[in-house]
Amino acid sequence: MRVLSRSIVNHAKNHLVRSPVITACVRGQQTAPREASQRNFVPNEPEAPKIVTSTIPGPVSNQKLHELAQFQETGAVQLFVDYERSLGNYMVDVDGNSMLDVYTQISSLPLGYNHPDLLALLDDPTNVKLFVNRPALGSFPGKDWGERLRNSLMQVAPKGLDHLCTMACGSCSNENAYKAMYMWYRTKERGGKLEFSQEELESCMINQAPGCPSYTLLSFKGAFHGRTMGCLATTHSKPIHKIDIPSLNWPIADFPKYKYPLEDHVRENQEEDKRCLEQVEDLINKYNRMGTPVAGTVVEPIQSEGGDNHASPEFFQQLQQVAKRTGTALLIDEVQTGGGPTGKLWCHEHFNLPEAPDIVTFSKKMLTGGFFCKEEFRPSQGYRIYNTWMGDPSKVIMLQEVLRVIERDNLLSIVQESGDVLMKGLRVLDQKFPQHINSVRGRGTFIAFDGNTTQKRDAIIGKLKLQGIHAGGCGEKSVRMRPSLIFQPHHANIFLQKLETVLSGL
Amino acid sequence: MRVLSRSIVNHAKNHLVRSPVITACVRGQQTAPREASQRNFVPNEPEAPKIVTSTIPGPVSNQKLHELAQFQETGAVQLFVDYERSLGNYMVDVDGNSMLDVYTQISSLPLGYNHPDLLALLDDPTNVKLFVNRPALGSFPGKDWGERLRNSLMQVAPKGLDHLCTMACGSCSNENAYKAMYMWYRTKERGGKLEFSQEELESCMINQAPGCPSYTLLSFKGAFHGRTMGCLATTHSKPIHKIDIPSLNWPIADFPKYKYPLEDHVRENQEEDKRCLEQVEDLINKYNRMGTPVAGTVVEPIQSEGGDNHASPEFFQQLQQVAKRTGTALLIDEVQTGGGPTGKLWCHEHFNLPEAPDIVTFSKKMLTGGFFCKEEFRPSQGYRIYNTWMGDPSKVIMLQEVLRVIERDNLLSIVQESGDVLMKGLRVLDQKFPQHINSVRGRGTFIAFDGNTTQKRDAIIGKLKLQGIHAGGCGEKSVRMRPSLIFQPHHANIFLQKLETVLSGL
Repeated sequence: MRVLSRSIVNHAKNHLVRSPVITACVRGQQTAPREASQRNFVPNEPEAPKIVTSTIPGPVSNQKLHELAQFQETGAVQLFVDYERSLGNYMVDVDGNSMLDVYTQISSLPLGYNHPDLLALLDDPTNVKLFVNRPALGSFPGKDWGERLRNSLMQVAPKGLDHLCTMACGSCSNENAYKAMYMWYRTKERGGKLEFSQEELESCMINQAPGCPSYTLLSFKGAFHGRTMGCLATTHSKPIHKIDIPSLNWPIADFPKYKYPLEDHVRENQEEDKRCLEQVEDLINKYNRMGTPVAGTVVEPIQSEGGDNHASPEFFQQLQQVAKRTGTALLIDEVQTGGGPTGKLWCHEHFNLPEAPDIVTFSKKMLTGGFFCKEEFRPSQGYRIYNTWMGDPSKVIMLQEVLRVIERDNLLSIVQESGDVLMKGLRVLDQKFPQHINSVRGRGTFIAFDGNTTQKRDAIIGKLKLQGIHAGGCGEKSVRMRPSLIFQPHHANIFLQKLETVLSGL
Repeated sequence: MRVLSRSIVNHAKNHLVRSPVITACVRGQQTAPREASQRNFVPNEPEAPKIVTSTIPGPVSNQKLHELAQFQETGAVQLFVDYERSLGNYMVDVDGNSMLDVYTQISSLPLGYNHPDLLALLDDPTNVKLFVNRPALGSFPGKDWGERLRNSLMQVAPKGLDHLCTMACGSCSNENAYKAMYMWYRTKERGGKLEFSQEELESCMINQAPGCPSYTLLSFKGAFHGRTMGCLATTHSKPIHKIDIPSLNWPIADFPKYKYPLEDHVRENQEEDKRCLEQVEDLINKYNRMGTPVAGTVVEPIQSEGGDNHASPEFFQQLQQVAKRTGTALLIDEVQTGGGPTGKLWCHEHFNLPEAPDIVTFSKKMLTGGFFCKEEFRPSQGYRIYNTWMGDPSKVIMLQEVLRVIERDNLLSIVQESGDVLMKGLRVLDQKFPQHINSVRGRGTFIAFDGNTTQKRDAIIGKLKLQGIHAGGCGEKSVRMRPSLIFQPHHANIFLQKLETVLSGL
């Protein structure tokens, strides 16, 4: 294992302030409540990472990979995890490596591993019965389904979005939210009428207009919204997701590409917003003229798979104005950003929109998929947005508990505090190692930075693993941090120490 | 409540043989092993349905519906269920009505409600941990994931399909299986090469050919494959699923429409097979000439949502030949038929295909979604077929137990025996009430019959509810039976008695 850099070792041992990194770390800690920074939220969580193999994946993971590959494609498998032994922020692999996990199952574990409050749920026989009797929720909901939703999802509905549809995963959430936009647009075209003509009813059965209208959706370069056909037509993050799959001639606009640090490039970044917004409006008008009208725009608040590309609150405010001006819908896809990692439950709350977006989709940290929407985006009849399961009550039980823990333990503040520690520390490292990394950016702990090349990014992630840090990549050359909501300032300091070690040794 | 017909009451009370229906029922019972027909598989299951409200949904369901409708579209909600009190084949609603359930959450409960062996799974703390630590299976599988799959899904893989991909639901299973067909087809076009050209890599990012080729899939009128965009383009069962949603100009062939009883219409039905198969081949050739080549055909072994439309084994054998002749793939969608309800684990086993279809998709009774495929349909690289969760280990744990119980309790034989009782009884009722019903058809307990009109079908389902039988509709005028695998001959007899009562009173 690589030797820790001297300054970091000093810090870890006796909190002596030596380097700018450490100064930043300590500043971050000082803003945290004393009790929060001193105890772990999950008892018995390890104090530090521990790596016991010389390569990751280690030999046991490699053996299991070989076995699984007999009958399944395994090109994306990184390692095998011992989920019984993993705890809190630490993921333990089958070779016994215990890693501080800042990627948390692609950002889908809100409370880390084996959180005691979630385990306790299964002690309740009523809950156990919900796990083994999965209902067709759209037709036969359980007796407390309404209360469950009211006490979980509806408690955290973005302001102004009073209607809800549950789904099983992120792709299905987006696919069905797209349908809600088409229906809304078509109902407008019909002058609000809810009845269908005979011609519509017949033509839709053979995929033809007017029953199946030639609507399109506008999406952004770099976007990721899922991999089913409708979602994939709006996804433009990496060729591997899209190649060989038929798609649709839908409008695709540039998403702002900012220069960092933001404070040094204010004017250029404003120009970039303006350029992209003009393109959006031009494309909507162009597609309308072509007879393939744009029903709506779909956008992530942070392009989370395509490279953690951020846009300003002003960009989103103006995007909403463009949608209004053109009579099109605006969907904000919070599948990866929703549920707290940006320090607010919904990332778009950072944008101060004058009114809610029309639809917000979610999944991952929310444990269940689904979308919130305005009343006019709620389907007019049963079975228009429907499938067998429509989600899974066992996930909503867990979400209800997650939301309770977030409030009880004040986890959104923890996210903000840990995020501050990370951002300050990363900015110092950015200045110290400009030959390796750049463009530190983020909200809360939803943070990324770029390697100067793809190779460098990959090297950083690989070497971090051997230091006991499990991080993820996104876009062409970004490292993305997606810790759980119980990631505390002292975890942030461990991350920074290890990253400094890696960067020093590159 | 309606008075039971005399013959049925007699049978229920003292097993006296009076009517042809009863004769058939008893014949059915005689083929069942004595112990199986005398005990219930779930202890303490009710002896008979019990209806306590004068309407269904009752007042408590209606109140809950009103509350849920405040924030969710509820047009498809039928009633609210007390899942704690439901047991075995009996679903108990929130008004206290205990109904024999032959619809079982749209055919998705393999072992009925609260099966003791499934409840016992949650006594094991190792399993509990799997429920609260949902992994990103495609990248970080758990230590026993390979063994779990090997001991569950791979044990029941259709012969010749040695490769597997897990997914969360039926729609995602089909969407991703479609992608596997496109990739296979494109790889053939590339002469087997697995590398992509720069032009392909760039064009796919903006949804254009050659990266996103103009491939199509052939589907059948009356088919149902799901409601996400790709699936929906191959679904043609009811306008309500499709209206206002943009779709694709893909080929759609006629599915055979048989005349019943089959034995009286052999020649006509053979002609019908021939007509449809010719149409399939013509369409494939036509779309190939148009520059929108057909990569594959997707078909249900029984069109399960579009009206329980059956086709002969010969039809499927020849469909496979057409696929081979045209160099296209054949996907059999067993989302609703898979997992045992036809008396075999996979319905296509009834067809004696000379070799396996290329892909078989599943979900519902299998608890997890996914697909089996031949090696050449397995993606060549990681991330080509991928999403965050790739299914859910908690479902696979339950499936493993379900498969154990199916074998231990010999449930596929039970399905066959109960199906025989149902078919014989229904054929007698068909002859006795030709003014109400027709076209009894099915395999195992996967059985349907038609009302003579849509109104009559709806009336039968409504009146069955008040008799304590919960059944479902499909297509324009069919009643579909989808009981669980623990539905025994004595349950079949209860169903027949109640149906006779309903038909007598129409």
